[in-house]
Amino acid sequence: MSVTSPTAVGPLAAVDMGSNSFRLEIGQVQDGRYRRHLYLKETVRLGAGLDVDGMLTEEATERGLRCLASFAQTLKASAPMRIRAVATQTLREARNRDQFLLRAEAALGHPIEVISGREEARLIYTGVAFLQPSGKPRLVIDIGGRSTEMILGDGPAPRVAESFQVGCVSLSMRYFPDGRYTRAAFRAAQVAAGAELEEALVPFSRRHWREALGSSGTAGAVADILRASGKTDGRITAEGLRWLIERCIELGHIDKLDIPGMKPERRAVIPGGLAILYTICAQFGIEELIAAKGALRQGVIVDLSERLAAGNQASGHDLRDATVAELQRRFNVDVDQAERVAKTAQRFFESAWPKGDAEMHKELRWAAALHEVGLMVSHHDHHRHSSYIVSHVDAPGFSQSQQRRLGELVLGQRGGLRKIEAGLSRELTAWQVLCLRLAVIECHARGEVDASGLALTRLAGGGARLSFSAQWAEEHPRTAYLLREEADLWARQGALLLTLN
Amino acid sequence: MSVTSPTAVGPLAAVDMGSNSFRLEIGQVQDGRYRRHLYLKETVRLGAGLDVDGMLTEEATERGLRCLASFAQTLKASAPMRIRAVATQTLREARNRDQFLLRAEAALGHPIEVISGREEARLIYTGVAFLQPSGKPRLVIDIGGRSTEMILGDGPAPRVAESFQVGCVSLSMRYFPDGRYTRAAFRAAQVAAGAELEEALVPFSRRHWREALGSSGTAGAVADILRASGKTDGRITAEGLRWLIERCIELGHIDKLDIPGMKPERRAVIPGGLAILYTICAQFGIEELIAAKGALRQGVIVDLSERLAAGNQASGHDLRDATVAELQRRFNVDVDQAERVAKTAQRFFESAWPKGDAEMHKELRWAAALHEVGLMVSHHDHHRHSSYIVSHVDAPGFSQSQQRRLGELVLGQRGGLRKIEAGLSRELTAWQVLCLRLAVIECHARGEVDASGLALTRLAGGGARLSFSAQWAEEHPRTAYLLREEADLWARQGALLLTLN
Repeated sequence: MSVTSPTAVGPLAAVDMGSNSFRLEIGQVQDGRYRRHLYLKETVRLGAGLDVDGMLTEEATERGLRCLASFAQTLKASAPMRIRAVATQTLREARNRDQFLLRAEAALGHPIEVISGREEARLIYTGVAFLQPSGKPRLVIDIGGRSTEMILGDGPAPRVAESFQVGCVSLSMRYFPDGRYTRAAFRAAQVAAGAELEEALVPFSRRHWREALGSSGTAGAVADILRASGKTDGRITAEGLRWLIERCIELGHIDKLDIPGMKPERRAVIPGGLAILYTICAQFGIEELIAAKGALRQGVIVDLSERLAAGNQASGHDLRDATVAELQRRFNVDVDQAERVAKTAQRFFESAWPKGDAEMHKELRWAAALHEVGLMVSHHDHHRHSSYIVSHVDAPGFSQSQQRRLGELVLGQRGGLRKIEAGLSRELTAWQVLCLRLAVIECHARGEVDASGLALTRLAGGGARLSFSAQWAEEHPRTAYLLREEADLWARQGALLLTLN
Repeated sequence: MSVTSPTAVGPLAAVDMGSNSFRLEIGQVQDGRYRRHLYLKETVRLGAGLDVDGMLTEEATERGLRCLASFAQTLKASAPMRIRAVATQTLREARNRDQFLLRAEAALGHPIEVISGREEARLIYTGVAFLQPSGKPRLVIDIGGRSTEMILGDGPAPRVAESFQVGCVSLSMRYFPDGRYTRAAFRAAQVAAGAELEEALVPFSRRHWREALGSSGTAGAVADILRASGKTDGRITAEGLRWLIERCIELGHIDKLDIPGMKPERRAVIPGGLAILYTICAQFGIEELIAAKGALRQGVIVDLSERLAAGNQASGHDLRDATVAELQRRFNVDVDQAERVAKTAQRFFESAWPKGDAEMHKELRWAAALHEVGLMVSHHDHHRHSSYIVSHVDAPGFSQSQQRRLGELVLGQRGGLRKIEAGLSRELTAWQVLCLRLAVIECHARGEVDASGLALTRLAGGGARLSFSAQWAEEHPRTAYLLREEADLWARQGALLLTLN
């Protein structure tokens, strides 16, 4: 990726692989406003394809792949400047997700990032806040296929964002498996939803917000029905929800669910969605909920737009930099040491890959910034603890996929190379690891280092050469010893040949 | 274990399964003084039995088991009041340690706890401080078979304790594999030791202490040689070390190493030990090092003595309680919630097992106290993060083995039971897990709970019954729902049958 000029932040594409629908949107942020170019939606219902063992079935996989292949066609035709594809709860859960992702990336022709529930919540809020700004403190609710996000905020960024593992697909499957809508089933579904959401009671209580928005397909569908039936002007109220639940019970079965304003593909998931929505309204004292403009996909585009602007250093900021700084504070990182290692690693990487991918450079810097977070757990094996934390911590702006890559770099900061063997098969990753390790070695005494002592170059054959003078080696016997051990290690491991001098 | 009266803290046994020697000591703390009853030592050299893949060889295993079997005989004959067996670096490293431990525990007839390097350092210091008290700030150095511990302190507890992975067995094997003592080999071994110990330079620098003590076999052996040769009165000096290294080089080979004051079993490990000792003296500016009284085994006995006294609530304290409180602070635990869960879990456990093992009660309390430390990483899957932290964090007073047990309890606080299946096969562990889970459910709304609502009893057949009234269930529909889900889960898992009402 090359850096673009500020005016060139052109059309961006977001692919949202939700548990109920897959969506493709191409849009653009121009002069502070969002403009949609294109929007496609397909009810893939991937979240219904998780079997009892948490494996995605082949049938559901194929539905997903067909949809992605068609998105790929559209993307090819419209050629957006950048594409970001994100996947949510179903792929957070699926035990065979890695196999699915390989095939899905091939079908889409683009990497797919799995994002955490909180990150999903943040991006939803970002989309809503951008498309429908308001100074008021607000609660945004997004009922997804297998998760429900709740977010509080009054500006462009959320104050509190949380994700709960209950959604319209999973709840409908569990409590309405045969398509029959009984009063008892609704009651049971509401109790289950309430138990899952009970932890939200305090952080999202009524006193924290003045308006409530619903950003999901469920909220939109219910608003449409209430408007079509003349019950409300599109506002969702407790009374309206009670009426709709009664209608479902009266009609009694999915096959008879012919309600004005309701699309057929909504039938299978409406009872679970209603149970969640009604429970939330009752639990949080919501008098009226407005169907929101803006959703995950627009949040992804707005966020990507800001990252690109930050790359230009013209305006905007990459949220991930702020996140990394916050994590350094939370885990009491020795920032001087982190900064020395980051600078040294980046110097090595730039000298070996002067035209390297900007995102790879950033990843190396973040890995260096966080490579010692694990010291809060223990000095012993701290690279493993750092890696665990980096891979699992809440990190606004990062996808789980990227956190895993960073976790792998951090894990590779020292010790044997076998533990990160898979990652080393990618050439640039091997170089990132090498640069981080050399930086950790050069900075091992935790004091100032002399940048002029060591130089790294990439050899024509693909190997690495680390140069230093005999005098330097004599002045730094321990560093020289560690470097020789390092060269031995790479010689045995084989991903990259490291030659000294 | 029943609680003993203060005067009854009788003879205690410590088994120290070091990488060079196994030791058994029986001793007693009386009126603030340490009295030895019995001491056995065998040069097992377990640490020489790790192959290139980090597996303990069958040969070394058998040497260890024979020694433990003979210790078992002695223990049977002398019947100490309590026994604690600890294992250090070799078993921290060995990849097949679980298999070894099973056989070793059978041979010894007693559980064996693997302790971390820092915990080893703390116990060494405890032993030295008790047997050789001093008000002066001191540095204690213990060169073990595969690790070296450094500790700073001026009272009964250390201020700084650290463990480094370099020891006399491993260094001798690496740099003197054929038993030849050359100048080049000594130089290379010193550089390697220096690189490993370089991180100690700042925390253990000269300005932090006024006297230096060496508590290991290496220090004792060198002191004996220097005394026997008349070089010093037993003090270890840089000059004395230089002389001894020169003697080794002159004699040139292990077979010719006939030095007055040196025991034959020391020959194989003396060069590595000397290289570490000389490097430390040079690096930290130590003019003289005194061979210390007191070591790991006495530290274990003193520590055990304090725990027992704490159980009596007469005097002393169980360090582990302070550690748990410190970890709650470090990881920002909501202590009100932790306390509610701990009280509720303990109430359940006590009603089911009124005469339960005191240590099991404590473990349940600690697990409850720490069950949410993982929230610092992420709300999502926090039980997994909590478990990771509890299993790996530096926790003075705890063995790694006990931390793993606590980590398993914490992991079992919610979600499926399959992930802790192995642990559940032990009846009391299954009860600990059940009580913790029920407490987490009862306290799920994070507010005050009414203790009178739920009662747990152990049924004659081995199952559990949780009783509550129909009225209570109506007043707490969500808790009742979660409890029914819980009963379903145990019914499917099968370790324990949980009946409601």
